[in-house]
Amino acid sequence: MNLKKQCQLSVRAFKAEGFIEKYQSLISKTVIPYQYSVLNDKAPDTEKSHVVQNFINAGKTLKGDTDHDGFYGMVFQDSDAAKWIEAVAYSLSNCPDKELEATADELIDIIANAQDSDGYLNTYYTIKDKDKRWTNLLEGHELYCSGHMMEAACAYYEATGKDKLLNVMLKNAEHIYDVFITNGHKGYPGHPEVELALLKLYSATGNKHCLELAEHFINIRGVDSDYYKKEREKRNWTVWGNNAEDNNYQQSGMPVRKMSDAVGHAVRAVYLYTGMADLASSTGDKELFSACVRLWESITQRQMYITGGIGSTVHGEAFSVDYDLPNDTAYAETCASIGLMFFASRMLENDINSEYADVMEQAFYNTVLAGIQLDGKRFFYVNPLEIVPGISGISPTHHHTLTLRPKWYACACCPLNVSRLISSIAMYAYGENSDTAFCHMFAAGEVSFQNGMKIKCRTSYPYDFNITYEIEKGGRLAIRIPHWSKTLTLKVNGKNITKEPVKGYIYLDACDGDIIELSLDDTPRFVYASTKVPELTGKVALRRGPLVYCFEGVDNNGDVLSISLKRNGKVTVSNENDNTLNGAVKLIVEAVRTKQIDDLYSDTPLENKSCTAVAVPYYTWGNRGENQMRVWMNEIN
Amino acid sequence: MNLKKQCQLSVRAFKAEGFIEKYQSLISKTVIPYQYSVLNDKAPDTEKSHVVQNFINAGKTLKGDTDHDGFYGMVFQDSDAAKWIEAVAYSLSNCPDKELEATADELIDIIANAQDSDGYLNTYYTIKDKDKRWTNLLEGHELYCSGHMMEAACAYYEATGKDKLLNVMLKNAEHIYDVFITNGHKGYPGHPEVELALLKLYSATGNKHCLELAEHFINIRGVDSDYYKKEREKRNWTVWGNNAEDNNYQQSGMPVRKMSDAVGHAVRAVYLYTGMADLASSTGDKELFSACVRLWESITQRQMYITGGIGSTVHGEAFSVDYDLPNDTAYAETCASIGLMFFASRMLENDINSEYADVMEQAFYNTVLAGIQLDGKRFFYVNPLEIVPGISGISPTHHHTLTLRPKWYACACCPLNVSRLISSIAMYAYGENSDTAFCHMFAAGEVSFQNGMKIKCRTSYPYDFNITYEIEKGGRLAIRIPHWSKTLTLKVNGKNITKEPVKGYIYLDACDGDIIELSLDDTPRFVYASTKVPELTGKVALRRGPLVYCFEGVDNNGDVLSISLKRNGKVTVSNENDNTLNGAVKLIVEAVRTKQIDDLYSDTPLENKSCTAVAVPYYTWGNRGENQMRVWMNEIN
Repeated sequence: MNLKKQCQLSVRAFKAEGFIEKYQSLISKTVIPYQYSVLNDKAPDTEKSHVVQNFINAGKTLKGDTDHDGFYGMVFQDSDAAKWIEAVAYSLSNCPDKELEATADELIDIIANAQDSDGYLNTYYTIKDKDKRWTNLLEGHELYCSGHMMEAACAYYEATGKDKLLNVMLKNAEHIYDVFITNGHKGYPGHPEVELALLKLYSATGNKHCLELAEHFINIRGVDSDYYKKEREKRNWTVWGNNAEDNNYQQSGMPVRKMSDAVGHAVRAVYLYTGMADLASSTGDKELFSACVRLWESITQRQMYITGGIGSTVHGEAFSVDYDLPNDTAYAETCASIGLMFFASRMLENDINSEYADVMEQAFYNTVLAGIQLDGKRFFYVNPLEIVPGISGISPTHHHTLTLRPKWYACACCPLNVSRLISSIAMYAYGENSDTAFCHMFAAGEVSFQNGMKIKCRTSYPYDFNITYEIEKGGRLAIRIPHWSKTLTLKVNGKNITKEPVKGYIYLDACDGDIIELSLDDTPRFVYASTKVPELTGKVALRRGPLVYCFEGVDNNGDVLSISLKRNGKVTVSNENDNTLNGAVKLIVEAVRTKQIDDLYSDTPLENKSCTAVAVPYYTWGNRGENQMRVWMNEIN
Repeated sequence: MNLKKQCQLSVRAFKAEGFIEKYQSLISKTVIPYQYSVLNDKAPDTEKSHVVQNFINAGKTLKGDTDHDGFYGMVFQDSDAAKWIEAVAYSLSNCPDKELEATADELIDIIANAQDSDGYLNTYYTIKDKDKRWTNLLEGHELYCSGHMMEAACAYYEATGKDKLLNVMLKNAEHIYDVFITNGHKGYPGHPEVELALLKLYSATGNKHCLELAEHFINIRGVDSDYYKKEREKRNWTVWGNNAEDNNYQQSGMPVRKMSDAVGHAVRAVYLYTGMADLASSTGDKELFSACVRLWESITQRQMYITGGIGSTVHGEAFSVDYDLPNDTAYAETCASIGLMFFASRMLENDINSEYADVMEQAFYNTVLAGIQLDGKRFFYVNPLEIVPGISGISPTHHHTLTLRPKWYACACCPLNVSRLISSIAMYAYGENSDTAFCHMFAAGEVSFQNGMKIKCRTSYPYDFNITYEIEKGGRLAIRIPHWSKTLTLKVNGKNITKEPVKGYIYLDACDGDIIELSLDDTPRFVYASTKVPELTGKVALRRGPLVYCFEGVDNNGDVLSISLKRNGKVTVSNENDNTLNGAVKLIVEAVRTKQIDDLYSDTPLENKSCTAVAVPYYTWGNRGENQMRVWMNEIN
């Protein structure tokens, strides 16, 4: 590991406690087994996956055996298996489980069998038509699937020391090298992902071809912005009929170093930017990092929901234009917020600045966690900020905003992305370099850094704002101070100390045995949006710590539309012991309720009556049946 | 004319003055000549029309001459010529013009030449493929085009006494009778329109086949809700690939007497309902009228914009679901509001109730008039209630909400519909039966009723709310009292009188020479929406008389998003003599302006500063360049 720059913590180096531990345990004990049953088509009443069978069938095809049921699913179906293995790898670090490891080993054997002798690995093309390989980068997802499997291979190797999948993917990387470098294929990935994965593979193995390939794919992108059009003209088939000239959608309109506005398919965008930021920190490429900064600002200063959701439009699952952030028709794909966390974490590798970690945390505690039901068995792909039963999921413009989490999806990218993200939260919560331990998020648990430092973090964050670091092995500690914390108390061994944060981080030299206590602001906050956002004028949202709150009908007499919050109204933190939301803390807010009228329009002023409104953390919405939900509420003086 | 029921006034019976006269003069002197130049492809920088040439080419085709440039345009392109002739007919009554009449006569000759010997008349099929006649009612628009030409024929006959086009269309009606009644074709119109047109033709000529056909098409609709699906299966061609199973879109899901919810394509819907209501009043069919009442309530109580716009979604130019009334992505097609006026006028024929006339007036003074630039040369198809340059017309969900009126459209239904509606406003403003003259709207001018009554209406409505009726020939007068008028003064020959309205109409027995003076409420009104409309909670709109007001950037320092109106704030009627909006009266409202902040989100309460905001009538928006526009404003206490 290159310890000169700040690097993500290894998942193995963190033993979570508290809030995070409960989620990781849910992933290990419920989600991973459930998802494996789905991948094997053994979960009742769920979308068919067939992904494991696809690998088995591809293996048979390679041996000339065509006695199987072919390929089923999305062209990128393979990636579901990859993400599952990656999640298993992290989970094995968090909760060792020999049986699960044996299951993963079996799946890896099946995958290895599906690799062609030249290193090619993709079940869609292997089963359907070998001759179509590398002829449709626009829609084909071959590099995307390879990328995910490379990530899985790195994670599994790190967790178990087993290198079977790692070797499969190194061979696959060499095959890709042959095609794109040695033999000069002019294409680049329709769906970026392999770039960040190759950099992981490089980091895990030191294989220079991986670095070279990642650089190649990043540097060649958009140089020929007509590449996909020419590719389309050469082939007589299509997967979905993607528009080969939609350069925004596929991030191919210009060389990456010229990019300034985040456009197009949001997941494609942030996966690409992650690779760019990673490469910039690996190579010290300042021009590339400048592009990343511009793109970061384009997202977070003009196109991001308060929940850390990005990609506001269903059309192309994409970024819209600046300040177009509708609540009720928001797309805000779970994967896009996960990708935003990836991007943020790689920006931190370039520049330790709490701005990146703030957004990383905002995306995690709101949109990413909203992506999974509290019981771990249902998942959101789309994360709107307003739900009105009768309109949401029904109106032609709201078909995508479901009122409840489904069990699975034909396109199942999000559920598996949530598993691997939560189980690897260590990588985002902590970082290190040769002399410093970085505490980006306030994740309770024990952390053993490669630089020799060892600390224990105690807190009930995000519902308690006192964080204690017990220093077992000392060194330089960098603790992020979130932008939302208006107050701050810092004690070292019981004595108050004052330190000015540098770019949002307080740096302390901690000795063995030191006790560092941090108290952050626990006051609920009313948040306002820029008046440039048409949808949000006159509205207010409620946050406490990193959590965005929302109002659901179930807590508010079935009707949140008629509630307005009082400006500067009193907000009480509920001490209710109701555990229906897994211990989530509710907020009670001064409000008024407008009397419902029968007329569609009336020139009689509406009657308002004082009331209180109950808010719950956004990530918990939709866990108690179909009902209204609103994040941005009207405000009344 | 059947004078037992309330009937529309004949256009010839009204000589407009004031506001309406100015608009009718604009239509006669500017719009009709401009539109004729477009239809002849002689207007610079506009969409190609080719509609006149299509008729010429069809005539040639019928004579076996194929030396022409074929058909161009929409499958329903013929209807543009029909609407133009209809508008000319009304215009000739309003402003006699021999030259224009000669031009129309020439066009009618061209059209007559394009009629086949069996009475069939449609240039698309005549030119392209005769064998496709009547095989694609779903998309084919043959009955729609016939219907529009029947309306033109009736109007031209009434205006000029010339029966050439009337005879052409009677022959066409007999052809349709042969196909659908005599020969038992099982289909019904994909786009309703011919029903209301056949009833006009019946009314103009007494031809019973027309009544029978109208009844047939209304009664057969939706009885076989799979008709279009079966039709689709039988043919190997399609115009646009319309979904033959979308029974909502094509109003074919159930027999019309069972309908309760207004669904699908809004123009198809209201054209159908107009025919239904007309048939119900012609035949006394109570069950059919009950269905009309339910559909009326579905539209006006749950699905109508405050501007009288209907069909809120771009998807299928359609009704969405109850209370889904987005401002910024509203479709609200101009034609749909014109169709709503048709429907309202036919409801009045069944039941004299101001509820219908209120909506008719609301649609006219807001959405219909917004459909045309103040100079008569540009037109809106889509009528949103909020415009934000940078998002409107650009974001993938806002492609249809243009910031400025275009000169023309490839699908040019709206501009021509506006011409014929404005030039025939007499039909909506006044009605009569054998013993009563109905004043539905307050249109200044002289009115000569067929029942012998003759009145003169003097007013500067909608900018003055004093209306004087001078009775030249007396009789029973029914004057609508708008629901929005909270005050009312009524004088007969200078003496105050008190009369209770009956279903919103005051009935008076007026003698020759009587002077009746009515004063309506001129107070600007704040209007609120039901809290069931998610988009409109916390918002307020401003109306005065029938006009809905809006706020444009050009009057408000370029930024209306940051303005909130003060609850119960003072509203001043401007006495500015600025004539840039053709004399439209502005309103000045107490408001606050929120200071713009740089951050996308901020937990510092936004600063508000008192200010005044300037509102203009909605129909005038977009006449002074691209700028922000908002109807529904945030309200602040």
